[in-house]
Amino acid sequence: MQRIINEPGFVVEDMLKGFAKCHKNMIHVDPQNPRVVVSNFCKNKKKVGVVTGGGSGHKPAFIGYCGKNMVDAVAVGEIFSSPTAKSFYDAICAADQGQGVACLYGNYAGDNMNVKMAMELAEDAGIAVKTVVANDDVASAPKSESEKRRGVAGEIFMWKVGGAKANQGASLDEVIRAAQKAIDNTRSIGVGLGPCTIPANKRPNFSITPGTMEFGIGHHGEPGIRVEKLASAKEIAKAMTKLVIEDVPFVKGAELAVLVSGLGATPVMEQYIFFNEVEELLREQGLSLYASYVGNYFTSLEMNGITLTVMKLDDELKECLDEEVETMGMTQLRRS
Amino acid sequence: MQRIINEPGFVVEDMLKGFAKCHKNMIHVDPQNPRVVVSNFCKNKKKVGVVTGGGSGHKPAFIGYCGKNMVDAVAVGEIFSSPTAKSFYDAICAADQGQGVACLYGNYAGDNMNVKMAMELAEDAGIAVKTVVANDDVASAPKSESEKRRGVAGEIFMWKVGGAKANQGASLDEVIRAAQKAIDNTRSIGVGLGPCTIPANKRPNFSITPGTMEFGIGHHGEPGIRVEKLASAKEIAKAMTKLVIEDVPFVKGAELAVLVSGLGATPVMEQYIFFNEVEELLREQGLSLYASYVGNYFTSLEMNGITLTVMKLDDELKECLDEEVETMGMTQLRRS
Repeated sequence: MQRIINEPGFVVEDMLKGFAKCHKNMIHVDPQNPRVVVSNFCKNKKKVGVVTGGGSGHKPAFIGYCGKNMVDAVAVGEIFSSPTAKSFYDAICAADQGQGVACLYGNYAGDNMNVKMAMELAEDAGIAVKTVVANDDVASAPKSESEKRRGVAGEIFMWKVGGAKANQGASLDEVIRAAQKAIDNTRSIGVGLGPCTIPANKRPNFSITPGTMEFGIGHHGEPGIRVEKLASAKEIAKAMTKLVIEDVPFVKGAELAVLVSGLGATPVMEQYIFFNEVEELLREQGLSLYASYVGNYFTSLEMNGITLTVMKLDDELKECLDEEVETMGMTQLRRS
Repeated sequence: MQRIINEPGFVVEDMLKGFAKCHKNMIHVDPQNPRVVVSNFCKNKKKVGVVTGGGSGHKPAFIGYCGKNMVDAVAVGEIFSSPTAKSFYDAICAADQGQGVACLYGNYAGDNMNVKMAMELAEDAGIAVKTVVANDDVASAPKSESEKRRGVAGEIFMWKVGGAKANQGASLDEVIRAAQKAIDNTRSIGVGLGPCTIPANKRPNFSITPGTMEFGIGHHGEPGIRVEKLASAKEIAKAMTKLVIEDVPFVKGAELAVLVSGLGATPVMEQYIFFNEVEELLREQGLSLYASYVGNYFTSLEMNGITLTVMKLDDELKECLDEEVETMGMTQLRRS
């Protein structure tokens, strides 16, 4: 693998230094814990704190969603590894203003364990913490076992909604309810066309034979539902759209938000080609797109592939999506 | 090459359809010419029009900088090919409001020829057009022949400054003067670690042997200054920074804007690691960073590599960089 790095063991450390320098107007590193990134807007007004965390290598996720009106503090893990309980706890402390903290994160064993321990520490410190655990990846377990599903790019909608709600002055319970609704209304699915390699490793974690694709791949290369022949954008879009639409399920006339993300090495051009097909399929089914996002929103190092995320909207969720936001991963002026 | 496309001959067409649907609040396709993208904000106020154009495959460039306070209309070419004279002319017509049009584009033979013909058509139609031709790539010719240098990611600064100036109500001559100053104060350099393939071709345009890098590579794989052993981020940053800093030249105490862009397949993590080294080198030389941009701002399909762009600032350029902007490639709230 051809990379622009220094020591492979220090990629997260070096990246964080660069990130903090580049976005110093927006975020800073916690002076007490170099693996916690905190929004500079965090304490501009009294509000519920919004926290997340996860392994590195998914940029913009997770630190790229820290900033104005989205996530207040992020616990940072090593590449594809959970942050420590201490980092989750320090992120909670950084975001707390006495109104409680919403910890909105993805369903992975390490994160679950470390958030649980962090919550015990927070309880001892008298900080009220409630959680929403994202499980939007339809490929990772059947619907009847949706509590086993992983969180993937749908987390971005969960953070957007939770962050907007907190900024509007909602209580902890209201923030949690809205963020839970966001993820309950959200489904994602990914396909992998090429693997990625953790910088400290010599070889990719997994392999994808040229001419094939892994349908339903996870954000760390977790096996998908099936390996099949690489198809056209139209056919891939059809299979992916069907899966997420039927799982919600959507009914004719529904409004939705769509997020298409490249996994790292997929040109943005291809993402728009794919989105064009998705939009057509949704329109044919009488569904309308209220908001669309296409780009590298949640990646897996240099994995080649794409994810599709859809969220069913209501007035509250639309209001939250429209909120002004300023982060590295998503900046948007208030939509009128 | 593993790709998510339909017919290779239709990638630009399919991409434009997806792009127009996704960003319908911001841009639309010219009803007269499907290869012209026009900002919806274009005629919100009487002002000088700002136009650009170029080959596809560089997303966000060029259409990704069309929107509020930046570029008003873009002529779209095939992959790595100039738009036609007719498309440049139609973009000029779309952006014109009787105050003249600034055509700000990059120094490539095809673009030069087609812009020249478009200007003749515009002259016949009574539209005043003036140009700035970006030539920020220091690797493409020696300083003594800087008129031969290619335009690369520095074009983004040229558009940002030109667009801001036009939005402030400046005359055509003032927009041209400011955009020319922006590019005169800007230098770029790239390194390539892996090639890219035009979708309609079977093979990459060029090759890069693993373990080596092409120092000074162009945005279409044009040969660089030298091929050398792939080095650490620190060493690559050192060589690249030296070249651009000495070419301006910068003097101690200067303020600058820095833009680091991945070329497509380089993880954003690596871009921040690289930026961290660049920032340190600049600081050691007594230069300070007023604004920093890191991300996939100007790519070459799935090329693996990175570009460094620096612009020397004065009060006028800072004021232009601070302007609110809303495009697919760059959205930023007004900086106070």
